[in-house]
Amino acid sequence: MDITKIQNQLRDFASERDWEQFHTPKNLSMALSVEASELVEIFQWLTPKESTFPDEKQSDSIRSEVADIAMYLIRFCDVLEIDLEKAIEEKLTQNKSKYPVELSKGSAKKYDQLNN
Amino acid sequence: MDITKIQNQLRDFASERDWEQFHTPKNLSMALSVEASELVEIFQWLTPKESTFPDEKQSDSIRSEVADIAMYLIRFCDVLEIDLEKAIEEKLTQNKSKYPVELSKGSAKKYDQLNN
Amino acid sequence: MDITKIQNQLRDFASERDWEQFHTPKNLSMALSVEASELVEIFQWLTPKESTFPDEKQSDSIRSEVADIAMYLIRFCDVLEIDLEKAIEEKLTQNKSKYPVELSKGSAKKYDQLNN
Amino acid sequence: MDITKIQNQLRDFASERDWEQFHTPKNLSMALSVEASELVEIFQWLTPKESTFPDEKQSDSIRSEVADIAMYLIRFCDVLEIDLEKAIEEKLTQNKSKYPVELSKGSAKKYDQLNN
Repeated sequence: MDITKIQNQLRDFASERDWEQFHTPKNLSMALSVEASELVEIFQWLTPKESTFPDEKQSDSIRSEVADIAMYLIRFCDVLEIDLEKAIEEKLTQNKSKYPVELSKGSAKKYDQLNN
Repeated sequence: MDITKIQNQLRDFASERDWEQFHTPKNLSMALSVEASELVEIFQWLTPKESTFPDEKQSDSIRSEVADIAMYLIRFCDVLEIDLEKAIEEKLTQNKSKYPVELSKGSAKKYDQLNN
Repeated sequence: MDITKIQNQLRDFASERDWEQFHTPKNLSMALSVEASELVEIFQWLTPKESTFPDEKQSDSIRSEVADIAMYLIRFCDVLEIDLEKAIEEKLTQNKSKYPVELSKGSAKKYDQLNN
Repeated sequence: MDITKIQNQLRDFASERDWEQFHTPKNLSMALSVEASELVEIFQWLTPKESTFPDEKQSDSIRSEVADIAMYLIRFCDVLEIDLEKAIEEKLTQNKSKYPVELSKGSAKKYDQLNN
């Protein structure tokens, strides 16, 4: 995925519409969480099993929300100059040490509860 | 950004810990929205202006939350076999026609309110 | 529940700490949604069935989050002078006509999808 | 506010529509957070100041979302048999000791950061 290209497209999109004034990190974090909740809304009354087999209409909505979330996330990282790929790499490394296989196998406990 | 590589890393991470049982689309949408709210929490009492200049501690937290959001989003797309890059491209095209420059310039109105 | 009394307590609490500056409707809506997500976090990896039998530790956390949500909601209504009880009454009446028993029985469809 | 009366109304509403199957704590927490985000959406592009003076249309939406949040919260407490009023009272007492006036005056810091 060419993040830089998407960031440029989103930057141009905002700039052409004079939307930079709205795109503060505070506001973008709100918009991102609103889109994440629109994804949650699709699943709220479905059983976990049903959620793995969305129908065509649900699939279209899911696809649409997922794109919105990604776009606000990428825009947010552009505004605060965060290298998303590097942030993910670091987090993956951290998670490996926070969740050792032998302690977390089959358990949904948070890392700070793993020894209990 | 090599999404396929990250998806493989996340898939292995989940598989080694026997976590596939927890990673239904329903549950992953919840986790994603929880992480999005943790990002919101950092900004909730800041002014929009303050949010554009996070201090070092806030920057570390932001970076960490942004990675969590991205990782759940990428994992979610893997579980439901969504091509994230293509979904973004489609959405960008849609947004261009939903928000024509002449109607949306300087306005934060939703597309269905643009003519009002 | 004596909403007026709680509103007065929360107003005094904020005033004594000089927190009115932070308690704009925008910020309070963020704080409210953050607390709602902390409630979601407790349930994110539980099955629906497990969620109906929280253990003691989970029950304490649930109770704590529920109070936080209620307090931000009540504070929010105070700041914007919304009569919460009346708003609920009105919504209950609306929902009765939006969700007629014969159309919505056993269905989780949204009101605008009920005829499909 | 007569919480017991509202809980009975919501219980009857759900029961008449055979909706108890959907109203697990897990699902209700999702619905509650979705409604909280719909409130956030109203404010996402407004300045904090603008958010204190919503126009008539915004006020109607705010009122509607606030009622939805309250109703899911009250229903949630009914399903898990939580005494909301008591939970609020306890939390108020806790907050008084977590946020001593002299340390938290004019500061939006979280209680665990107050000494920094």
